[in-house]
Amino acid sequence: MKPHEEHRQAAPHEVKISIITVSTSKYQDAQSGKDVDDVSGETARNMVEKAGYRLVSKKLIDDNIDMIRLTVFKSIYEEGADAVILTGGTGISSRDVTIESLRPLFEKELDGFGDIFRGVSYRQIGSPAHLSRAAAGVIDRRIVYCLPGSPNAVETALDLILPELPHAIYMAQG
Amino acid sequence: MKPHEEHRQAAPHEVKISIITVSTSKYQDAQSGKDVDDVSGETARNMVEKAGYRLVSKKLIDDNIDMIRLTVFKSIYEEGADAVILTGGTGISSRDVTIESLRPLFEKELDGFGDIFRGVSYRQIGSPAHLSRAAAGVIDRRIVYCLPGSPNAVETALDLILPELPHAIYMAQG
Amino acid sequence: MKPHEEHRQAAPHEVKISIITVSTSKYQDAQSGKDVDDVSGETARNMVEKAGYRLVSKKLIDDNIDMIRLTVFKSIYEEGADAVILTGGTGISSRDVTIESLRPLFEKELDGFGDIFRGVSYRQIGSPAHLSRAAAGVIDRRIVYCLPGSPNAVETALDLILPELPHAIYMAQG
Amino acid sequence: MKPHEEHRQAAPHEVKISIITVSTSKYQDAQSGKDVDDVSGETARNMVEKAGYRLVSKKLIDDNIDMIRLTVFKSIYEEGADAVILTGGTGISSRDVTIESLRPLFEKELDGFGDIFRGVSYRQIGSPAHLSRAAAGVIDRRIVYCLPGSPNAVETALDLILPELPHAIYMAQG
Amino acid sequence: MKPHEEHRQAAPHEVKISIITVSTSKYQDAQSGKDVDDVSGETARNMVEKAGYRLVSKKLIDDNIDMIRLTVFKSIYEEGADAVILTGGTGISSRDVTIESLRPLFEKELDGFGDIFRGVSYRQIGSPAHLSRAAAGVIDRRIVYCLPGSPNAVETALDLILPELPHAIYMAQG
Amino acid sequence: MKPHEEHRQAAPHEVKISIITVSTSKYQDAQSGKDVDDVSGETARNMVEKAGYRLVSKKLIDDNIDMIRLTVFKSIYEEGADAVILTGGTGISSRDVTIESLRPLFEKELDGFGDIFRGVSYRQIGSPAHLSRAAAGVIDRRIVYCLPGSPNAVETALDLILPELPHAIYMAQG
Repeated sequence: MKPHEEHRQAAPHEVKISIITVSTSKYQDAQSGKDVDDVSGETARNMVEKAGYRLVSKKLIDDNIDMIRLTVFKSIYEEGADAVILTGGTGISSRDVTIESLRPLFEKELDGFGDIFRGVSYRQIGSPAHLSRAAAGVIDRRIVYCLPGSPNAVETALDLILPELPHAIYMAQG
Repeated sequence: MKPHEEHRQAAPHEVKISIITVSTSKYQDAQSGKDVDDVSGETARNMVEKAGYRLVSKKLIDDNIDMIRLTVFKSIYEEGADAVILTGGTGISSRDVTIESLRPLFEKELDGFGDIFRGVSYRQIGSPAHLSRAAAGVIDRRIVYCLPGSPNAVETALDLILPELPHAIYMAQG
Repeated sequence: MKPHEEHRQAAPHEVKISIITVSTSKYQDAQSGKDVDDVSGETARNMVEKAGYRLVSKKLIDDNIDMIRLTVFKSIYEEGADAVILTGGTGISSRDVTIESLRPLFEKELDGFGDIFRGVSYRQIGSPAHLSRAAAGVIDRRIVYCLPGSPNAVETALDLILPELPHAIYMAQG
Repeated sequence: MKPHEEHRQAAPHEVKISIITVSTSKYQDAQSGKDVDDVSGETARNMVEKAGYRLVSKKLIDDNIDMIRLTVFKSIYEEGADAVILTGGTGISSRDVTIESLRPLFEKELDGFGDIFRGVSYRQIGSPAHLSRAAAGVIDRRIVYCLPGSPNAVETALDLILPELPHAIYMAQG
Repeated sequence: MKPHEEHRQAAPHEVKISIITVSTSKYQDAQSGKDVDDVSGETARNMVEKAGYRLVSKKLIDDNIDMIRLTVFKSIYEEGADAVILTGGTGISSRDVTIESLRPLFEKELDGFGDIFRGVSYRQIGSPAHLSRAAAGVIDRRIVYCLPGSPNAVETALDLILPELPHAIYMAQG
Repeated sequence: MKPHEEHRQAAPHEVKISIITVSTSKYQDAQSGKDVDDVSGETARNMVEKAGYRLVSKKLIDDNIDMIRLTVFKSIYEEGADAVILTGGTGISSRDVTIESLRPLFEKELDGFGDIFRGVSYRQIGSPAHLSRAAAGVIDRRIVYCLPGSPNAVETALDLILPELPHAIYMAQG
């Protein structure tokens, strides 16, 4: 048995997850009563539930530093999430602030999440992968993932994340 | 049509580029009237022009923090560059300061440029790739790339950058 | 002859290396007189000696910020090491502090060591590689590597590092 | 009329304030049902109310990074505070984390609050003032003050802060 | 003779100074052809010239990060300034960016300029002084001062700065 | 009894101190066998001994980042110092690196030491005080002070520090 397999067995049986979609346009549509088609958030929900984890909350918020931070803290402290998955707000325009909001709060960054995710993306879509931003880190023993907003990126990232999640949470709590 | 292809069509038709070679030895040769063979700068010029972009300036400067910063600001504000490509000064000795000069000025870093570039290099040259430094980021809606000084590295990096440049600039301006 | 081959020839003939195992449990065992089976440290020693480099010290220390820093400084200033290889203390729990101890001391980080190492790991073990942390940087012209504590990771990392070490040291001293 | 007097007239008529006492020992006492004598918090409450401002919440929390951050965000986003006054957790032991929790969240620090506060303290108590830590900054147009936990320090700091509070809030919102 | 008096004699005989007024409203007025009454800039000019220093440029610019940086670099590299005095853009609203633009470029900050300036202000105007922001630092052997935009603040700050300027420049070049 | 008086009684009875003079010119003189007149170091020694504290080491070192760091770690870990007092290397030229060496190692900075010290200096020497740099912080429960190199500055700073030292160490260990 390899070391990481051993850890995985010792990991918590029920993993609790919050999903947060970050999008100014979708948030404004929702605020003004329009129907919102949150494909990425739904992709994440389906994959999380199919993996057998427990979804404790799913929200749609504005691409705003303080709303992002408040929502993540509530996921952790009021909803009991072990992991928080954000999708959207990771682009390179000045209005994209998901990573900027959360990186300063990471006690420890999972340095490798971004490069392994992009390596997989590069094999799928080629050179546009170098423009993709993604990050993950630990806040008070929980793991927070910042994923791009496209459904394809969410799928690629969760294929990487979900099988290792109990192991990752076990390590972050260690 | 994939999302990034759609963006590419909406991108600016004419892309304006500055090329800056950073090298203390070449700069000193040029200052003392010697002929300078700037192979990397010429490689960049040829690839930029072949890609159909417009070269607005090409310079050779000293590996000096403030000269690097001033030259980049002039490219952006006085020459109207949409993207600035620097080559050289990215090594690991204390005299190499291109990345150190520009990283603190990046409003947003393109985290993935370095790792995707090195992943391609690794497949070409193997383990020496792990010693290679490269970075890219956004300064006031323009994109600034810091490439190693070897002609091979410039070629590998521009093969990655140039096809996506209109898309990248479109996103940085968003 | 490729440029990096040329550098390698000019590199110092004798490379001096310190190996430091960072582990709270092993350190406590050693302090209380128990036998300690430091597989990762021994793996590193064997590979370093097989590569023909000179081992100037090999130590086992606690996973403690200041002890890590003091031990690295002694390797450099009192034992004359050209490169320091630490193994262990790179996990994502709050008790793992090797990278946190040394990154603020790096005058220059070898940005690419972590992603190239993980890229190789990913091809070996798949998605768990994205949880792996590793870093390398320059302190006063010496190179310091922080590797995970598993023997497999040490082996993978040193396969990458050792062939390029004279070249890396040559560049760091440049 | 001096410029700052003019601003003060244009300032919001009703200023809403949250008071947060940060103390591990008092928090544990409260959790275990003991009576807690929160002299500093009560001092702050009396001075805030006497100054004619509106107290929107008053809490006692643990000296814990994430609880401090969550409580401040709730003051701002759920209770509508224009200013948040924290007392306690500003010492120099590793368990004191109020300033460490909030400084990374400040969009802008009021650099001068600490030194002016200590200058006044120095005239009152002499050299022990140089050991005193205090900080203030702006989070999303609200002002957050971190004061030491002693009632005397709270009184000295609020004598400085309260007369200028409408002006400060007006400027932070500008 | 005290040590700082000795330094002062060795200092450069002619001190060259740039004055930069940072103000979005005044800049927009100037751009649209209106008369601009730049009281603070004129106060600075009069004091600088009365002190016998040489004014090499005087400009009015927008409160914009990159314009501030470009203008300071031009003062240093194209106009030969030994010291740059900026006034305005130091407030605590998100639109005030003078200190934010320049602090990351300071190789060394003159930590004490802000607190000594505020100490003097406090004795003049009392508690509003704690809201005042000011900073100074060294960029490539030149000294850059960021002063508040009010004429009174400029006067107070320059009373502190101007007598020590040759000494400060001598030390920064050391 | 005021709170800080109470702390002082509980403080350790014997306080152990290291004194480190940082000066490139004096260090080179000492290395080449010349007599060195270390007035500031001797001033510190006399004041420390007169205050009844125990001097565990007194050294003269080069103004070099890594030598400064190594010497401070040895004071703490090998000589058992509770407090380390460095004098020199705090100026604003690029060769002065005492504060730059130690600030990144401070787990917590005593923010107020610099401004209170300068406030006292200002009353003694006037405006040159704003050019003075000084800092203090906690490294692994010990306190490290960085003082300017002039004997007058050492005297002014130690008048402030020495009476509060047992209290400060007590708090840092808390």
